[in-house]
Amino acid sequence: MKAGIFDSGIGGLTVVKSLLENNMFEEIIYFGDTARVPYGNKNKNTIIRYSLEALKFFDNFDLDILIIACNSVSVYALNEIRENTNIPVVGVIEPCVKALENKVKDKSSNILVIGTKATINSKKYEDALQKLSYKNVKSIATGLFVCIIEEGLFEGEILASTINHYFSNLGNIDAVILGCTHFPFIENKISSFLNNAITIHSGDAIVAFLKTEYNCKNQFEKTSIQFFASENPNELNKVAKQWLKDLI
Amino acid sequence: MKAGIFDSGIGGLTVVKSLLENNMFEEIIYFGDTARVPYGNKNKNTIIRYSLEALKFFDNFDLDILIIACNSVSVYALNEIRENTNIPVVGVIEPCVKALENKVKDKSSNILVIGTKATINSKKYEDALQKLSYKNVKSIATGLFVCIIEEGLFEGEILASTINHYFSNLGNIDAVILGCTHFPFIENKISSFLNNAITIHSGDAIVAFLKTEYNCKNQFEKTSIQFFASENPNELNKVAKQWLKDLI
Repeated sequence: MKAGIFDSGIGGLTVVKSLLENNMFEEIIYFGDTARVPYGNKNKNTIIRYSLEALKFFDNFDLDILIIACNSVSVYALNEIRENTNIPVVGVIEPCVKALENKVKDKSSNILVIGTKATINSKKYEDALQKLSYKNVKSIATGLFVCIIEEGLFEGEILASTINHYFSNLGNIDAVILGCTHFPFIENKISSFLNNAITIHSGDAIVAFLKTEYNCKNQFEKTSIQFFASENPNELNKVAKQWLKDLI
Repeated sequence: MKAGIFDSGIGGLTVVKSLLENNMFEEIIYFGDTARVPYGNKNKNTIIRYSLEALKFFDNFDLDILIIACNSVSVYALNEIRENTNIPVVGVIEPCVKALENKVKDKSSNILVIGTKATINSKKYEDALQKLSYKNVKSIATGLFVCIIEEGLFEGEILASTINHYFSNLGNIDAVILGCTHFPFIENKISSFLNNAITIHSGDAIVAFLKTEYNCKNQFEKTSIQFFASENPNELNKVAKQWLKDLI
């Protein structure tokens, strides 16, 4: 089984990691639109246009399934992508919402959703959680995390003061949806500041979703993987090696 | 006299401010490529391609001069832009270097250049300063400042810890070139951390350069100005009103 992974940049590697750890596919084709990253501060029409252009990249690969790792693309361009391809397309919002539903049974729990401006402004997570009767949902755009992670500052004063800036006035939080593929890089810091709140990680959520909804199994001993980027493919390959280590 | 100002996003408004304060032009056409901002983390070929595409925007405006406010464009695409237009094109590197030369006479002074990855990696400032015999030049890519400024965090803990992160081990600095149009928004904080080092501000440097090299004068009582953006023009107009206040 051959999967395409689309992300606006390198963040989708956190999803790839979960897929590799669970031997979900025989072959993975990763494409990051690094020439136009970030998508998360762009508006809806631009994100749709960029996504449809990026989709053409996958034309030559006879994929069985396409996974949209990027939250900003998933909230705004999923329907348009589906209209322009014949293969199944999995976005990241529905898997994360299902993962939360499985982990958080008490509907009065305090849920926090964090993401880019595009993701938060779309209110897609809030609407989905409201439909499931979660009563206490807060959401904040935490765009600075993306820049800090892109700079490789996974600990230290800047990250600490940024976490404090975004989270210090929230009160008690029981679970947090990491609504951006970058955030798993600092998952422990976020969870620890929020008194070990449950974290919902896009990669793990997608793995669970593929198992239940698409009957995918942990069945391939080895995944062959290729990385492509719209600019600086060497940089993407470097980060992939650092992040995925002996998984590739 | 009608000038076009090109920037990758909203940062070039700091240059516009200097131009307006000095009544340099009768008319200004501003174009920010907000759909593809930031340029500063892109590579040379992408920056050239984006710049030439943006240049086409100005085709319909019969300009007398084009000013490239963006440092990342100035270091990588200035020649290509000049080859594709018949009007004079002013980049930002030469004006800033000349401004430094005027303000810092001692060639053994400690000079710091800060900018995006693209600007710093190009070594354009370092090479120019070396030719002028400045002996002690340091340069650092301070990309996080752009994100912090875009979030409107002009003071507070995050900015303080980021300034500390970039500058705490530099030793004495006599003058700093603010090699990105965003940085004038936090000029005072930077200067103050560096013991009131001289700051070179792109906008003021361009004004001085236009006076000496292009014989422009403070001659127009009122400048008519129009703002265009490749996405979210309303956001650009909003920031322009906040930043330029009664100048427009």
